[in-house]
Amino acid sequence: MNEFELISRLTHSLPANPSVVVGAGDDCAVLDLGLPEHCLLFKTDAVVEGIHFLADTPPEKIGRKALGRCLSDIAAMAGTPTAALITLALPKSFDPAFVEHIYAGINALAREFAVAVVGGETTTNPGCLLISISLLGTVPRSKAVLRSGAKRGDAIFVTGELGGSGAGKHLDFTPRLEEARWLADHFHIHAMLDVSDGLAGDLRHILNASGVGADLLGTAIPVSRAAKIAARSGAAGKPPTLAALTDGEDFELLFTLPSREAVPLLDAWKTKFPALALSCIGKIRVGEGILLRDKFGPRPFHAHGYQHFE
Amino acid sequence: MNEFELISRLTHSLPANPSVVVGAGDDCAVLDLGLPEHCLLFKTDAVVEGIHFLADTPPEKIGRKALGRCLSDIAAMAGTPTAALITLALPKSFDPAFVEHIYAGINALAREFAVAVVGGETTTNPGCLLISISLLGTVPRSKAVLRSGAKRGDAIFVTGELGGSGAGKHLDFTPRLEEARWLADHFHIHAMLDVSDGLAGDLRHILNASGVGADLLGTAIPVSRAAKIAARSGAAGKPPTLAALTDGEDFELLFTLPSREAVPLLDAWKTKFPALALSCIGKIRVGEGILLRDKFGPRPFHAHGYQHFE
Repeated sequence: MNEFELISRLTHSLPANPSVVVGAGDDCAVLDLGLPEHCLLFKTDAVVEGIHFLADTPPEKIGRKALGRCLSDIAAMAGTPTAALITLALPKSFDPAFVEHIYAGINALAREFAVAVVGGETTTNPGCLLISISLLGTVPRSKAVLRSGAKRGDAIFVTGELGGSGAGKHLDFTPRLEEARWLADHFHIHAMLDVSDGLAGDLRHILNASGVGADLLGTAIPVSRAAKIAARSGAAGKPPTLAALTDGEDFELLFTLPSREAVPLLDAWKTKFPALALSCIGKIRVGEGILLRDKFGPRPFHAHGYQHFE
Repeated sequence: MNEFELISRLTHSLPANPSVVVGAGDDCAVLDLGLPEHCLLFKTDAVVEGIHFLADTPPEKIGRKALGRCLSDIAAMAGTPTAALITLALPKSFDPAFVEHIYAGINALAREFAVAVVGGETTTNPGCLLISISLLGTVPRSKAVLRSGAKRGDAIFVTGELGGSGAGKHLDFTPRLEEARWLADHFHIHAMLDVSDGLAGDLRHILNASGVGADLLGTAIPVSRAAKIAARSGAAGKPPTLAALTDGEDFELLFTLPSREAVPLLDAWKTKFPALALSCIGKIRVGEGILLRDKFGPRPFHAHGYQHFE
């Protein structure tokens, strides 16, 4: 049983109440607690030593990544983060200065996005260091962008460049909060998420939630310099476009919108965010799954992104 | 450095923003997000194999305890829980049925208190099973009861009976949500928390936050049957009153209110909650620390409750 099969079994009949607008299965839960103009976004995410960082990763970067991943999920809904709680599960012997540096990394990123850190807890974890962060945010009532709204004919876009994130970007990416809000404010974004498991795996989340398929144009997929270098050196063990499709932890925005808005979006984006690439990589079609078009012609693409269990 | 010293270092200058009413240091964070009549309560709590439960603890009880601890913290603020996120950090090999039973325990308790489970995540934790739960709740604007409001002359009360929780109660306690809201609705509760670290340690949290001291009457402290049995058999290694003062994980309410309300409270309580004991165990005085009055006369009481690090 892999991670997604287990989650599917666990989430099929969860307790609900009238506050729930969107429960398990999207980037954040969406709750209506009676705020006149906003819904709440609620998210939790953990990073674990040996999986998301290594024992010798600088502690500020561990902290930054732990909070950054949650912020990226708030971005994926076009929301604004408000307050975070930090859970530190620490090995039995630990260096208090190391823990303070983790907090320094969390706090610096929190200040950058006006997020309050309002507590949390420390506990013992015999095996390794684990940091779980819980984040609360808001989104205007009509603006939360879900995974389930992709429509036939939509253009598929992705920000930035993908692949090879393990070389460094996974520790110091910028959550696309400003970009996501701007997109939701100015265009009809039908579906959006942040690329954490890998472009192909995450696109499939959109496709499955929306009941559609996708045509991807291989040459349009933006490949990062890190993925090209890793492919050239042989370290990646896969061609750069495959790395861009499956590496994961890019934390870029993947979204769809009506194709008539594609050119106006590209024009407006260049003015608003000149330093960040935006690529149209394909379109939504009826059916299911991903059809990848490259020099070998169109073929179904089955490779997965990252899964936590085999 | 013990747990409380570390937390004090980590929390002395956390990022804040205008939404923060109460940050780190109370049972829950309190946030003002613009709800007309309510503030939000925000809490996270983790249970770890080998510390909060054992490898052979029935999984339903592990799940129940994990959520129950968070609910008890919402009770400590006189709030109402709304929605929870579940983080499961699982050993590399695990039995999916075991995980489903953990969720069954969480879900049953959630339904009992109308809490929605709106997602979470599963990740790998090499050493052991860890469950972190994040909980969101609400509290009427003027009703959140903090730790910091105890005043000279206040009567000190505790619900239920204390000590020996490790014999079973720590796995199937009832969070005192209804009782706490009733208290806040009908009396001037100055300070409140839930007894998790042990009566003495938790009372000190109130005393330190409020800048006062306390006189406790040893014979008034309600000792559980489990603590008496453990003392008689020699298994506890301490007298029953000391167990009641230091064992922890009772998850009862400890609170103070003006002494003139003590008798009306006891009368009203007997009618409203006839099955649950309520004991006046002492009073708040100027000064600091706990003075315990027993057959040896009054003496400073220094023993601590549970601390996570030595």
